[in-house]
Amino acid sequence: MVEKNSEEIYRQACEVLTGGVSRNTVYRKPFPHYAAKASGCYISDVEGTERIDFANNMAALIHGHAHPAIIEAVSRQLQRGTAYTLASEIEVAFAQLLNKRAKSFERIRFVNSGTEAVMAMIKASRAFTGRAKIAKAEGAYHGTYDYAEVSQTANPTNWGDINKPNSVPLVYATPKGVLDDVLIFPYNDIERTIAILDTQADQIACVLIDPVPHRVGLLQGTCEFIEAIYNWTRKNGALLVFDEVVTLRVKYGGAQEKYSVSPDITALGKIIGGGFPVGAIAGRADIMKVLDPRESNLRFPHSGTFSANPITMTAGYVAMELFDKDAVLRLNALTDKAIRQIEEVIRLVDVPVSLTGAGSMFRFHLTPTPPSTYREAYQTKEANAIINELLDFLYFNEKMLMINTFACMFSTVMTQKEIDKLSDGLLRAFRALKPKIEKLQNT
Amino acid sequence: MVEKNSEEIYRQACEVLTGGVSRNTVYRKPFPHYAAKASGCYISDVEGTERIDFANNMAALIHGHAHPAIIEAVSRQLQRGTAYTLASEIEVAFAQLLNKRAKSFERIRFVNSGTEAVMAMIKASRAFTGRAKIAKAEGAYHGTYDYAEVSQTANPTNWGDINKPNSVPLVYATPKGVLDDVLIFPYNDIERTIAILDTQADQIACVLIDPVPHRVGLLQGTCEFIEAIYNWTRKNGALLVFDEVVTLRVKYGGAQEKYSVSPDITALGKIIGGGFPVGAIAGRADIMKVLDPRESNLRFPHSGTFSANPITMTAGYVAMELFDKDAVLRLNALTDKAIRQIEEVIRLVDVPVSLTGAGSMFRFHLTPTPPSTYREAYQTKEANAIINELLDFLYFNEKMLMINTFACMFSTVMTQKEIDKLSDGLLRAFRALKPKIEKLQNT
Repeated sequence: MVEKNSEEIYRQACEVLTGGVSRNTVYRKPFPHYAAKASGCYISDVEGTERIDFANNMAALIHGHAHPAIIEAVSRQLQRGTAYTLASEIEVAFAQLLNKRAKSFERIRFVNSGTEAVMAMIKASRAFTGRAKIAKAEGAYHGTYDYAEVSQTANPTNWGDINKPNSVPLVYATPKGVLDDVLIFPYNDIERTIAILDTQADQIACVLIDPVPHRVGLLQGTCEFIEAIYNWTRKNGALLVFDEVVTLRVKYGGAQEKYSVSPDITALGKIIGGGFPVGAIAGRADIMKVLDPRESNLRFPHSGTFSANPITMTAGYVAMELFDKDAVLRLNALTDKAIRQIEEVIRLVDVPVSLTGAGSMFRFHLTPTPPSTYREAYQTKEANAIINELLDFLYFNEKMLMINTFACMFSTVMTQKEIDKLSDGLLRAFRALKPKIEKLQNT
Repeated sequence: MVEKNSEEIYRQACEVLTGGVSRNTVYRKPFPHYAAKASGCYISDVEGTERIDFANNMAALIHGHAHPAIIEAVSRQLQRGTAYTLASEIEVAFAQLLNKRAKSFERIRFVNSGTEAVMAMIKASRAFTGRAKIAKAEGAYHGTYDYAEVSQTANPTNWGDINKPNSVPLVYATPKGVLDDVLIFPYNDIERTIAILDTQADQIACVLIDPVPHRVGLLQGTCEFIEAIYNWTRKNGALLVFDEVVTLRVKYGGAQEKYSVSPDITALGKIIGGGFPVGAIAGRADIMKVLDPRESNLRFPHSGTFSANPITMTAGYVAMELFDKDAVLRLNALTDKAIRQIEEVIRLVDVPVSLTGAGSMFRFHLTPTPPSTYREAYQTKEANAIINELLDFLYFNEKMLMINTFACMFSTVMTQKEIDKLSDGLLRAFRALKPKIEKLQNT
């Protein structure tokens, strides 16, 4: 191919890809940049500009890019084939590896994406309980399955009374049946959530929880909240299911390790693919039986052409073997160090910015104290505009890539050097935008 | 890892994977076999038995396994990273390549599986038309999205009146809203289908058609049927959408090339991934605009962590570039040759077996004349038992792997040698099972 710059590639892209992109995430005004190569925690575009990658493909890469051990294992598997109509031993070895990480991961099934994992988890919950409805948190992102995306972007004009939040469609013309079958509750609000669940107590198949929901504000689910929901599900014949597609990275056994109670099923994805498309559900053996093809009355027939393909399994196995207990602790300690440096920067610049997060991930908020609910964390158009200015400043001036909610996802290949660049970059960005950020507080 | 045999691996698998498998497709009684390696049209299990692969990962591999050109291109990309939070040039080049194959592929969006593609296609249809309902053919498989899987396995005890087939849930406790929003019609039956569509004419977002639906019987949609449905959609403000996840292989421009009318959107998958997880939707630019992130009123917000990842795009680009017009013609000619040899075998053995199919795929039926409807093609428990005996005979005695519906999907790396083995193997299999197949006809 002739070498082109990003603007030229994007012009051609618009003629064949709708909006010129295949993922809205990568869109950037006036045009997205095209990656040429990436290695470790650095990514270079076709213009030759190298940036530190704090996005890690939307939190999917725990060891950064092109990790040598993953390349080596995948290269070996490539020679033996990438997809079979037979099983492969590596899927068993990988399931054994994941199974050890959390006691709730009794039985596993692999799929191709987080979206497919959440969909399978909801369908398994229905098949096990015989009920159709689910409950989920306002603002929480759980992939693109209709039921899972209700109220994902609820806003002040449509979210309704906090005591009974509306089921707000994400996609135009979402069937009414979907909206009717999804109950929305305010995250971390025990009293209101229980009252909402009680209104349909005998119809709820599962309560879907992300233990550190990114779009809700990257807030940690409190122990009290998770335990209250768990107890409610025990009393009412419902399942508690976790979306740990993003949050598995938080602790060795996922964010669920923090709680005294375990989910019945967990959806996994992102980092467990070692950089390749993946999803999985892991849960109680008796519940997962709804998927067992040996059952005479198979409640949930399910297959997938690329599920458990040996390339993803191989890459995932190597990635998760490397991300052992020590690696998790080291990465989280590094992230803590970064957060302390950033908090120092915020104090130094004296700018009303706060942080939320857990483990190796954190998100910035343009408020002096961190939000504690989705409605508090909700960003106005004005706040969003300033966040985009900050992200552009960091991207163009400081050569660093972040997630477009103004969040960072660390990888194990990062070092003090990248942390120092991050805090220095933020220092300049906050200084440059300080008047605008302050003005936002006063409006 | 210590070398184990398939039985031992499966025993361990049962302790961590529900039913011991991650795809029901690979399950085999009393235990599935585990692949060790595959190359071209041959696949070997861990016991060292090599078989001809006529399944090609459920029709997903058009050039067989480990094609050198794909390995080479993927190996190069591996060094540069497997997944970015930036766009990559190869996604544009690949979209350009696909765009040329069919005039209806005006704008493309990539996803991770055929399931995700059909789901996105249905959601795009709703978003464009503002309507919630869809119509689909009884018995047709379209992946694991609830709406797409209604009546996929409808049987005589639940399918109801052919003039108004029931919406039969596949998964236990499928929400009633899903069943109410899906109309079921009998494939290739113009009069009944139009009458059924007319009952909800102003509520149907799209009519979903696989032009050669495998589970319906691998029957080709007649020109009259497809054109009648197309005309109905034009008159009633609905979309005609095709599932060509399997059938793109049938002609250079997919099975749709045969018809005088084009679908509004097409779902793609399988072969376009070059052996890696993939899906895509391709359709009219004005409709695909519902996905365009630049629109101020974005009707269908949509993203995906691994969508358009550069490994899948690279492998898919190479695979589809190699599968050019000449390659399609050569492969289809080879398949025709195989079918003629097999028909000769059937005459020679004088066994009541018939064939359906198109392009590089065909399916066997244990009836003297091929079925022409889903209900005719529907296999009783008794027929299924004999098919499993035939498949076991071919698998164990003749060393060949087929799809468990008794179907073959050819790849470009096959030659006369494999065809001869196939017809010889079938000769022996049909001879061995002839009494049972004949008895089936008389019951």
